[in-house]
Amino acid sequence: MTTAADYRADVYPTRSDAEEWLPRLDPVVWSDASAGPIDADGLKRFDAAGYLAIDELITAEQVRALRDELVGLCSDERLRADERTVIEPTSEQVRSIFEVHVLSPLVAELIRDERVVGRARQLLGSDVYVHQSRVNFKPGFAGKEFYWHSDFETWHAEDGMPRMRAVSISISLTDNYTYNGALMIMPGSHQTYVSCAGATPEDNYKTSLRQQEIGTPSHEALAGLYAQHGIDTLVGPAGGATMFDSNCMHGSNGNISPLARSNIFVVFNSVDNACQQPYAARQPRPSFIGARDFTPVR
Amino acid sequence: MTTAADYRADVYPTRSDAEEWLPRLDPVVWSDASAGPIDADGLKRFDAAGYLAIDELITAEQVRALRDELVGLCSDERLRADERTVIEPTSEQVRSIFEVHVLSPLVAELIRDERVVGRARQLLGSDVYVHQSRVNFKPGFAGKEFYWHSDFETWHAEDGMPRMRAVSISISLTDNYTYNGALMIMPGSHQTYVSCAGATPEDNYKTSLRQQEIGTPSHEALAGLYAQHGIDTLVGPAGGATMFDSNCMHGSNGNISPLARSNIFVVFNSVDNACQQPYAARQPRPSFIGARDFTPVR
Repeated sequence: MTTAADYRADVYPTRSDAEEWLPRLDPVVWSDASAGPIDADGLKRFDAAGYLAIDELITAEQVRALRDELVGLCSDERLRADERTVIEPTSEQVRSIFEVHVLSPLVAELIRDERVVGRARQLLGSDVYVHQSRVNFKPGFAGKEFYWHSDFETWHAEDGMPRMRAVSISISLTDNYTYNGALMIMPGSHQTYVSCAGATPEDNYKTSLRQQEIGTPSHEALAGLYAQHGIDTLVGPAGGATMFDSNCMHGSNGNISPLARSNIFVVFNSVDNACQQPYAARQPRPSFIGARDFTPVR
Repeated sequence: MTTAADYRADVYPTRSDAEEWLPRLDPVVWSDASAGPIDADGLKRFDAAGYLAIDELITAEQVRALRDELVGLCSDERLRADERTVIEPTSEQVRSIFEVHVLSPLVAELIRDERVVGRARQLLGSDVYVHQSRVNFKPGFAGKEFYWHSDFETWHAEDGMPRMRAVSISISLTDNYTYNGALMIMPGSHQTYVSCAGATPEDNYKTSLRQQEIGTPSHEALAGLYAQHGIDTLVGPAGGATMFDSNCMHGSNGNISPLARSNIFVVFNSVDNACQQPYAARQPRPSFIGARDFTPVR
C-alpha cells in the first residue's frame, strides 16, 4: 500500500546529470471490470499496451457541435492573444488552446459524461480531477511533429505529480490516418521510466509547448525502447478516442497531407495523487497547464 | 503519333501567373507485357495508379553491399563538400548524394541490371538513359518532410524534358513503415498536370533540393487531388522498390521514428524524349541533377 510519505518522496527522479532507466513502481489499472464501462479484456489490453482505443466514443453530431464550438474559439482575437493559446511557429495558425473545459461548456459537459470520466475513474480506481485539458489543431500541409516524450516525466518534474496514477484521453474530432500525423505510441513503454538528463530552464513551458527539448529521451533510449516495443499508430474515424497511461512514450509525425487533425485532449489525475511542489523545477507551471485545483469531476 | 515538332512545342506550360489543371497528353505505358519483366496485370496497375510496387527487387546481400558502399560515401569529406551532396538544414547530416551511379560502381551495375533497366525500357517503350540518380538518407528522429510535387513539372520547367515519358524507381535500402517517412503517392494523379504559378528564380535548384517552394501546387489543388485520389503510403521491406510515373503527385512526411530511411532513386527517361532547353527557366540545372548526356543504358 502507498502511504502519504511515499507521495512526498521522489521515486521518479529526473532532469539530473545522466539519463537512466527506472522501473515503474505503480499499477497501471487500479480497479476492475465491475467498476466502470471498460470490460475485462479492455482493461487487460490497457494494462499490457498502456493504451486503449475506443472506436466510437461520441456521435457524429457531437463531433460536429464540438468542432463548430472550438473552431469558433480560434477566431476569437482576444483568446488568440491569451497565454492559453499556442500558435504554430511557422504557419501562425492556432496549434492548441488550453483549459478548453473552462472555455467551452460543451467540452465541460463531455468531460462529465460517464463514457469519459467513468472510464478514467475506473482505470485510476478513485475520484479524478482534470489536470489539463486542451484542443489540438494540427493543420493540413504544414502540421509540425510532436517529438517523443512521456507526459508523466514532465508532470512530475514541472507540475509536482507524485506517482503514475493519471490517464489521458484524446478524443478525435477528425479522421486519423497514418499519414496525417496520428498519435504514435510505443506499446508497453509505460512500464519503463526514462529519467531524463538536463536541468529544467526557468519558464520552460513557454518554449516546450511549441517544441520540447528538455525532458525528452536520448536517441539511444528511444532506439532501445523501439527495439523492445515497436510503434503503434492510432488511426480511426472522428468520434473515436484513445486513452493512454501517463507514462507512455508517444509522439506524432508532421503532416503534409491536406487533412487537418484535431482532437480534444484531457488528462485525469487521481484525487489521491494531487500535485505537490514540482520535483525538478523552481515553481509549478501555470494552472492552465497543470491544475492546482483538485476538485473531483462530478 | 508524336512528331519532332511536338517535342519542341510547350504542351505543358507552367510557372506562369495562375495555377491551372491540364490533362495529360501522353501514354503512361508505352509497350506491352511481351516487352519485359512486368506482366500484363502489373502494367495495368501502373497505368491506373501511376506506380507499381515491387516486393523483392534485390537480395538482402545486395542491400547490405549497397548500404555499406553508400554510407562510405557519406563519410568522404571531399564528397561532403561537393555540390552533388545535399546536407539537411538542421541536423547537418547528408540528405542526398546525386549522380550516385557515377560515384558508385555497385549502383552503376544495379542500374544496368535487367530487373531495373528492363522494366524502365518496357514502361517507356524505347531505350532509356539516366536523367538523374541519387541516394536519399532520411535520418531517424529528425528526418524532414518532402513536400508534394510532380517531378515532371520541375523536369519540364527547369531541365527541358518535353513530354511525360520518364519513370522513376526508388529502391529501398531500409524497411519502410507508415511512420518513418515512407513515400506517399496520390494514385491516379499522374493523369492531371498541375501547371504551377510563379516564375522560376535564378539557381532555384540550390534551395529547392532542400525545400521546394516554386513548382508546388496550391493547398486548393492538393486538396482537390486528394479528394479525387486519396493517398497511398508505400511500405515494405528493404530490397523492394517502387516504380512511379514522372507526373505522380507525391511527397513524404517527416520522420521522428528511430528508423532511418534510405533509398536509391533513379530516373530513366526515354531516348526519344531527351531534354532540350528548359521551358520555364533561364538555363538548365547542372548535369548532375538533370543529365545532358543521353547515352542509352546498356
